[in-house]
Amino acid sequence: MKKKFMDIAAKGALKGLRKNHGGPFGAVIIQNNNVISKAHNEVIKNNDPTAHAEILAIRKASKKLKRFDLSDCEIYSTCEPCPMCFAAIHWAKIRSLYYGCSKEDAANIGFDDKFIYEVIKETTNKKQVTKVQTHREECLKLFEEWENKKDKIQY
Amino acid sequence: MKKKFMDIAAKGALKGLRKNHGGPFGAVIIQNNNVISKAHNEVIKNNDPTAHAEILAIRKASKKLKRFDLSDCEIYSTCEPCPMCFAAIHWAKIRSLYYGCSKEDAANIGFDDKFIYEVIKETTNKKQVTKVQTHREECLKLFEEWENKKDKIQY
Repeated sequence: MKKKFMDIAAKGALKGLRKNHGGPFGAVIIQNNNVISKAHNEVIKNNDPTAHAEILAIRKASKKLKRFDLSDCEIYSTCEPCPMCFAAIHWAKIRSLYYGCSKEDAANIGFDDKFIYEVIKETTNKKQVTKVQTHREECLKLFEEWENKKDKIQY
Repeated sequence: MKKKFMDIAAKGALKGLRKNHGGPFGAVIIQNNNVISKAHNEVIKNNDPTAHAEILAIRKASKKLKRFDLSDCEIYSTCEPCPMCFAAIHWAKIRSLYYGCSKEDAANIGFDDKFIYEVIKETTNKKQVTKVQTHREECLKLFEEWENKKDKIQY
């Protein structure tokens, strides 16, 4: 873990929040001690609720390395990733995550990270999204075609 | 809930899997009975581990509607969203989610959705990502600047 990488993430976050790009969040992705990508929250700038720093950093790193597997990379984030970003880190197969503020710190300045964790953990009765399962049989046919596909690339 | 919307999501998923764009997953976003966006998994095509159908559909819908708040929209997905997509649905403020296959169905064809849910719920001892908190004080300064910012747009 190196302070200079968190400094880069924090510097990006500061720039972004001062320019009204989004919340005070930054992230960098490191491979062999080199910065592969850096990003800050751009939810407001891009009108994109998925434009969190970690998601943008992962997308940039994948594009740069031309692969969706970032298992040889580390990620630094100024805040504990929300469930969206934490799951994205898993999908990217990143093994090491260094973060600054906690989800409780984020909740204290008005962000829902902690609430979404509670919904997923089922430790709250509050609910924002109504989930209904329907047409499973129709969708299972897609899964069967995937299972039987000879040239599939599992990821 | 309307079958025709799930049909559109399933059709996109089928097209995508046959073209080797990614896994057998599709999603559509609906506003007032109109399709605002549709997408299918493009993880392989784009070399982007975040390019799940729901994420892409949310990004397209936000771009089209020019706002990050999709609270007047519904989402249909051929599969129960993974934690990344489920959290993204929360950030987008979508209230209704209709899904076909379950995360157990996805696990049966080799996808990690269920595992990532278990990691977040802390119901598994397996761990893929090592989390280390560091430099909280440095990052808290960003949060303080956000708190004191006069022209901030909370989202």
